[in-house]
Amino acid sequence: MIGGGKDAFIGEVHRMAARLDGHIDLVCGAFSSDPKRSKTFGKTLHLSADRVYGSYEEMIAAEKKLPEDVRMDFVSIVTPNHLHFAPAKLALENGFHVVCDKPVTFSIEEAKALQKVVEKKKLLFALTHNYTGYPMVKEAKAIIASGKIGKLRRAIVEYPQGWLSTRLESSGQKQADWRTDPKRSGKAGGMGDIGTHAENLLEYISGLKIKKLCADLNTFVPDRKLDDDGAVLLELEQGAKATLLATQIAAGEENALKIRLYGEKAGLEWSQMEPNTLLLKHLDKSTEIKRTGVGKLSKATQFATRLPAGHPEGFIEAFANIYKNFALSLMAVKSGKKPNDLIDDYPKIEDGVRGMRFIDKVIESSVSKEKWVRF
Amino acid sequence: MIGGGKDAFIGEVHRMAARLDGHIDLVCGAFSSDPKRSKTFGKTLHLSADRVYGSYEEMIAAEKKLPEDVRMDFVSIVTPNHLHFAPAKLALENGFHVVCDKPVTFSIEEAKALQKVVEKKKLLFALTHNYTGYPMVKEAKAIIASGKIGKLRRAIVEYPQGWLSTRLESSGQKQADWRTDPKRSGKAGGMGDIGTHAENLLEYISGLKIKKLCADLNTFVPDRKLDDDGAVLLELEQGAKATLLATQIAAGEENALKIRLYGEKAGLEWSQMEPNTLLLKHLDKSTEIKRTGVGKLSKATQFATRLPAGHPEGFIEAFANIYKNFALSLMAVKSGKKPNDLIDDYPKIEDGVRGMRFIDKVIESSVSKEKWVRF
Amino acid sequence: MIGGGKDAFIGEVHRMAARLDGHIDLVCGAFSSDPKRSKTFGKTLHLSADRVYGSYEEMIAAEKKLPEDVRMDFVSIVTPNHLHFAPAKLALENGFHVVCDKPVTFSIEEAKALQKVVEKKKLLFALTHNYTGYPMVKEAKAIIASGKIGKLRRAIVEYPQGWLSTRLESSGQKQADWRTDPKRSGKAGGMGDIGTHAENLLEYISGLKIKKLCADLNTFVPDRKLDDDGAVLLELEQGAKATLLATQIAAGEENALKIRLYGEKAGLEWSQMEPNTLLLKHLDKSTEIKRTGVGKLSKATQFATRLPAGHPEGFIEAFANIYKNFALSLMAVKSGKKPNDLIDDYPKIEDGVRGMRFIDKVIESSVSKEKWVRF
Amino acid sequence: MIGGGKDAFIGEVHRMAARLDGHIDLVCGAFSSDPKRSKTFGKTLHLSADRVYGSYEEMIAAEKKLPEDVRMDFVSIVTPNHLHFAPAKLALENGFHVVCDKPVTFSIEEAKALQKVVEKKKLLFALTHNYTGYPMVKEAKAIIASGKIGKLRRAIVEYPQGWLSTRLESSGQKQADWRTDPKRSGKAGGMGDIGTHAENLLEYISGLKIKKLCADLNTFVPDRKLDDDGAVLLELEQGAKATLLATQIAAGEENALKIRLYGEKAGLEWSQMEPNTLLLKHLDKSTEIKRTGVGKLSKATQFATRLPAGHPEGFIEAFANIYKNFALSLMAVKSGKKPNDLIDDYPKIEDGVRGMRFIDKVIESSVSKEKWVRF
Repeated sequence: MIGGGKDAFIGEVHRMAARLDGHIDLVCGAFSSDPKRSKTFGKTLHLSADRVYGSYEEMIAAEKKLPEDVRMDFVSIVTPNHLHFAPAKLALENGFHVVCDKPVTFSIEEAKALQKVVEKKKLLFALTHNYTGYPMVKEAKAIIASGKIGKLRRAIVEYPQGWLSTRLESSGQKQADWRTDPKRSGKAGGMGDIGTHAENLLEYISGLKIKKLCADLNTFVPDRKLDDDGAVLLELEQGAKATLLATQIAAGEENALKIRLYGEKAGLEWSQMEPNTLLLKHLDKSTEIKRTGVGKLSKATQFATRLPAGHPEGFIEAFANIYKNFALSLMAVKSGKKPNDLIDDYPKIEDGVRGMRFIDKVIESSVSKEKWVRF
Repeated sequence: MIGGGKDAFIGEVHRMAARLDGHIDLVCGAFSSDPKRSKTFGKTLHLSADRVYGSYEEMIAAEKKLPEDVRMDFVSIVTPNHLHFAPAKLALENGFHVVCDKPVTFSIEEAKALQKVVEKKKLLFALTHNYTGYPMVKEAKAIIASGKIGKLRRAIVEYPQGWLSTRLESSGQKQADWRTDPKRSGKAGGMGDIGTHAENLLEYISGLKIKKLCADLNTFVPDRKLDDDGAVLLELEQGAKATLLATQIAAGEENALKIRLYGEKAGLEWSQMEPNTLLLKHLDKSTEIKRTGVGKLSKATQFATRLPAGHPEGFIEAFANIYKNFALSLMAVKSGKKPNDLIDDYPKIEDGVRGMRFIDKVIESSVSKEKWVRF
Repeated sequence: MIGGGKDAFIGEVHRMAARLDGHIDLVCGAFSSDPKRSKTFGKTLHLSADRVYGSYEEMIAAEKKLPEDVRMDFVSIVTPNHLHFAPAKLALENGFHVVCDKPVTFSIEEAKALQKVVEKKKLLFALTHNYTGYPMVKEAKAIIASGKIGKLRRAIVEYPQGWLSTRLESSGQKQADWRTDPKRSGKAGGMGDIGTHAENLLEYISGLKIKKLCADLNTFVPDRKLDDDGAVLLELEQGAKATLLATQIAAGEENALKIRLYGEKAGLEWSQMEPNTLLLKHLDKSTEIKRTGVGKLSKATQFATRLPAGHPEGFIEAFANIYKNFALSLMAVKSGKKPNDLIDDYPKIEDGVRGMRFIDKVIESSVSKEKWVRF
Repeated sequence: MIGGGKDAFIGEVHRMAARLDGHIDLVCGAFSSDPKRSKTFGKTLHLSADRVYGSYEEMIAAEKKLPEDVRMDFVSIVTPNHLHFAPAKLALENGFHVVCDKPVTFSIEEAKALQKVVEKKKLLFALTHNYTGYPMVKEAKAIIASGKIGKLRRAIVEYPQGWLSTRLESSGQKQADWRTDPKRSGKAGGMGDIGTHAENLLEYISGLKIKKLCADLNTFVPDRKLDDDGAVLLELEQGAKATLLATQIAAGEENALKIRLYGEKAGLEWSQMEPNTLLLKHLDKSTEIKRTGVGKLSKATQFATRLPAGHPEGFIEAFANIYKNFALSLMAVKSGKKPNDLIDDYPKIEDGVRGMRFIDKVIESSVSKEKWVRF
């Protein structure tokens, strides 16, 4: 693991998610740019001291020298955005597979460069757009793919949070600090941090790509350097229309990612905060409450579910589904097999590139007088 | 009453709403353009035959000749949009107050002309934007006016319905028929029918006017003549931003008008389909479930509530609040008093004009290549 | 109308419910035991002064002398429980039909005596167990009658309120005052006031009668004279079991009447505070959200619904369904016809007698050491 | 680990819960009574073959001989009820701490005998009444302990499931098979399996012990050998009253454990299927939606929470809180410290004994003609 030291929220999430299914053991790490802090932190994780490194360069070099059955199989990169590209590239070039937090890089140029490395090295690359790991997100995708709701007409995806309603970054809060800093976060604030989750979820479930968009980006908190709010009108393939909202100043909202999709014959509604439920709404017939573990569900949904009906699974379990599919794919590859469709289902470098393009196009549109910007 | 004969949904709603509080008696009507059908229908309402008229012109003329304590006090106009202006104008010119269904007229020109008549005659004119009659809508307005949520930043108003997902108008269904016909409905379809409700609700609660907008209008059902779906980006006064969605092809949705408003300090959420609840969301504090009849609520909220907590009030009661305030204002005026603020609270001709301008501007934006259209 | 003067909650509910559909006009009343206050109050209802009476005896005598097409058709009795029997009996004996609030009388003896008068005079008698007027209650009844959920096994009916959590009666609050006074309320407090609603709802929906019960009654608020909380185990016909909870000290609850019924094949859930929804739960299949106005619903459900889907109907509308069916039955009877099943659907004197027996048996069980008391 | 082989639902839950926080490594197991199946299964868990045993006796003997830093620290017993006592006793007597699934034993006699062993050996014993591991359950307990809702008056705890609505045990389904078999499950069916969870949750949150009860137990599914439904009236300490429902024939219900508690000043509501929410209901003031990660919460609540607000945590995380507190207590004990209150918070052998007594008393009451049975 690279990054994810003390007080890092997402590092611990990655560790719990990786552990859950028993396929992955954390064997080494470079948890901080400060070697001493890295060491100290590694101890709390019960790691042997010689495999807690002072930098990612050191870690990659040292691990490479270990016997194949001892050395790490892949690295997880959980640093801020500006520190994704270099370690990812180095790991890949030294033959290690990669799991990387989102958005994939600092800029689209980096993303495209990384894509080339992944393709050249033919290694696995997973991007933790974790929301697509939820069972009922997979069910929504399967329902749309089956044609049950007909051709998609209108989608609404929204991601309201309220935690940046005040100038939290000036209080020294670590999460707020780097996310609102253009030097570490990139061109976009909220649109990069959570807007790309919304974009990825929309394309994953609908199976349709964005064709053009019209964005209105705002920074409501005084002296903040990046956007903390934005609304986007979208056109998808096949003439479907969508709205996307990503805001971090929706006072009182927690992490309320939600998507609704309406086709010719039916509609779907899923909310991240009640993730085990999917509503299937019919024309003049009772709405169905689809639930994990209840009734006929797609293979992907079942594969992503660990517990019987009524035993709530949450964020960590969905995140673990990315790790599980990545780990099973890696085990398949190592034993010379091609991963099957069920386990090959996790976000990849292509999703990362699309996310970075989304950020670029939203920024472009937000300063344009033209209504539509082609994607 | 003008219009509202057999099979007319909104006519019966007006009658129930007018009756509820016992201040208003239906005394006469011209229920259909066919005099015979008007007569037959009037009978089912237990009206005396001599006060059921064959046309609104006849009604206005005849009623005017009756003694003041016998003749009608006001007319309710519940015809399709293209038949609002003429009877409203005639009634006003003959000294009758008017309650009129929304949108106020067929075109903005008619709306402005009507506004002049209202102002000249100094008569009461109520527009049935009924959703502002809900107690918790009034509570939301009062909370914002009190400064409790701070300056407004982001609002989301949405009005998804699914009933026009198929080409219902070709089945002869009366409601669908005129609403999708540009000769009776006006320039806009869904944006006029329900988009204006959303616009009115947003301005009523927020207390802020729309400054500019960017609209994307769609017609998804083949061969339909007017929009059945649309999304709008809005800028309000004081720099607040909003999105407005009005769609009638959201398969499986009923009548899901909903509004969320986020200020610097707190957020509000209200849904028409659970109207007695208003969520007040705080920064890092428990969300409060505000309920009609529970705890401290504004005077306007209490005045709009008829029952104790937990006894659900619905659409008819909210609609009746427009009629109640109109009737009490009329009684005040007749006894020479100025209506107080509590009873003077109902949509008026100005709201009608704004609604018509909203339709105009949305249409203008939807065909423009420019991003923003000034309101 | 007898009773229902100033500050009486239920009197105004009866008036709104009676007015809603335009079949009933309030023509006279004896609103208070104080003739002067009755007169003053009648004026606020726009009644002519000569038909506002100083007592119900005076009203019944005077109205009887009026020509048939002028005099009242029926009386509504909305007084406290101890004042139901005498006016109901007098009205019936003088040929007037009766609508009476619940519980029907002060004691079971009175209830049985009244039943004899009703049967002898062959007049209509409606008891306002208003919760059975809700459309989705009728849908639940129809679903069970259709056999769709199979033989009933377990039912849970609960009616928690919190308004009597403190000794409100000592504050002079009128509603609390008489309801906690054994001289006006009868043997039971909460079990009579709201427990009988729960019992009536359970028998109405399930179509099954109570066979035996085991009750635990409590008075939690110091110095209160009647029960303010109680739980009952029940056995119904056909071996079904149920629990019934009626409590008025459930701090923070509004009026949360709710019923769940589980059969061999499916389950049902309905909550009074979200009355337009009925959940139909299946064995290993998606739960269906049944909604008023959506899809195939029973005739009784449709007949009890006034608005299209998504336009919430509430407490007054359900209450008005009792009045509507009573009024239509009365109109049928007056024109020599037998009321059909749709309109004959309202609670009658038999329901009143069962309610009084329920009160008696609950009290009997609550002081018994035996587990079960036969109903 | 003892038990928890192929197709065992709860064994995998224990493993995921134990893994989650990185304090526990699975090092050995006796997964099946069939040594070969145990071996095969151990392989799928990446265990070294020499530490996968053919029986728990073999495992305990062999592990005891290993060096202290290598051998297992404790055993997890995840077998059916009749196979809890013997391995638990043997493990304790050989110096191993124990985590055991619930109900603790087959009979109360076994439970009391085991309690003596635990006390004599002064070893740690955790019982996986996992529902008390939820953060908002701990918040409810803290709120009541703080006096905020006042003296408890009425509690309602219910645990409806629908999965045993049909005679699933005759289909060979493993979970249903042993749970409905008196030779493996014990005296009680549903009341032992889920009723004890409800009982434990009620006593944990309220801080009050059951004093007497009145139970009605039923077996609705033909030819089933144990109860599949039951309702209980309860009296707790301090005069509080409660109802407890445990049913497995509530067709269409998943795992709907829910508790409501009403004190003199406020009420609480928590549902297992939406576990990150706790409603705090006030007298005539807005209900508060308490949420994990939002606002001021008790230390125990915060300690049991792993993610920021709006990132749902579920069943596995709550289960893992039992393991986490047990592991941290064990680490404290091993380093010679007394576990502090935060980590000492998990169900123990006493809870197990109370659960077995609950089963006994419910059975006793269900066949008694007396109303109340002392606990």
